[in-house]
Amino acid sequence: MQELAKTHRVFIHAGSILEKIPGDDERIHNTTVAFDRDGKEVARYRKIHMFDITAPDGTAYRESAAFKPGDAIATYDCEGVTVGCAICYDLRFPYLFGALVDKGAQLIALPSAFTMQTGKDHWEVLCRARAIETETYFCAAAQTGAHTAGNETRHTYGHSLVADPWGHVVAKASDGVGVVSARVDPKRVAKARQMIPVAQHRVKLAE
Amino acid sequence: MQELAKTHRVFIHAGSILEKIPGDDERIHNTTVAFDRDGKEVARYRKIHMFDITAPDGTAYRESAAFKPGDAIATYDCEGVTVGCAICYDLRFPYLFGALVDKGAQLIALPSAFTMQTGKDHWEVLCRARAIETETYFCAAAQTGAHTAGNETRHTYGHSLVADPWGHVVAKASDGVGVVSARVDPKRVAKARQMIPVAQHRVKLAE
Repeated sequence: MQELAKTHRVFIHAGSILEKIPGDDERIHNTTVAFDRDGKEVARYRKIHMFDITAPDGTAYRESAAFKPGDAIATYDCEGVTVGCAICYDLRFPYLFGALVDKGAQLIALPSAFTMQTGKDHWEVLCRARAIETETYFCAAAQTGAHTAGNETRHTYGHSLVADPWGHVVAKASDGVGVVSARVDPKRVAKARQMIPVAQHRVKLAE
Repeated sequence: MQELAKTHRVFIHAGSILEKIPGDDERIHNTTVAFDRDGKEVARYRKIHMFDITAPDGTAYRESAAFKPGDAIATYDCEGVTVGCAICYDLRFPYLFGALVDKGAQLIALPSAFTMQTGKDHWEVLCRARAIETETYFCAAAQTGAHTAGNETRHTYGHSLVADPWGHVVAKASDGVGVVSARVDPKRVAKARQMIPVAQHRVKLAE
């Protein structure tokens, strides 16, 4: 990825990698990394929320058995656009996205692997809601296909999408493998925030 | 409303009323009130987030000019179901709904008057997202029609709906005036929370 960014002179916000930190416990991190046009690492985000759930079909997922959660939010500058990082199950925790907005995020990148069931029921609605609440471009890449490990085959939902800061889906993959792209205009972020200054309207609730 | 609750022996969660508190400044509160089957008031919630926005068509709304925000969350027991209160623009602030869950909410009642534009673009997606995040029944009643004050006519979106704790819309009004109803089963709340224990997965982010 790093080489690719350099040789092609492009920014790359990579999907999750498995990261082992020396001296850490035996678990690894679910980590996303961004590289600039020189191949220089400009951000590293370790997924905070662990996917320890039981699907409606009874399948249990215990991410925390193998993965250790991160504890820090991450943003980076991509040539004038501040990008905020999140991964997959983080999508269900709106306060993370509020914190990214407080750090200046104008675009959120969320590499994901939603399951078929949670994907069809929750993926698009949650991505759009986050775009609307944060008034950011919401760029959500999602794994698709069948993934076999041992005797078990899991299916992911896919449907990578980009929502604009008003919450409209402006690009979306169909079923199966695909590529989506969309133009990002920071002026649309500013305009949405000028119309509905939602970040300024937040209050601290009494305990 | 209070009399109606008593004579018909029903719970009523009333839409917003204009509430003047003696000794307060000249502004009023945008308040929702619930009555039990005896006509007894069981909850009173004053809208916390003020709708001070400018619509895409240029129309400016300045709720805070005439209304004073509330500062307390409210829940009540409706025969074994804990109901959390919110009003209209509150819908854009997810932390309020997280706080209602912390107070035990299994159902959220959100009387609203979304504008035509923000309604068509944001209403259903935000209601569904709140249901999914909070794993509550989300009962969102919305004003519909044309409302003239002076020279100005404003249009509200309507489309009252109920979403279940998995985020499916299980009842929804069409265009115009309508009535919706849905069966509420607290076991579905418990089941969603057992499958995806999202409230237990929340973390406190480092500053």
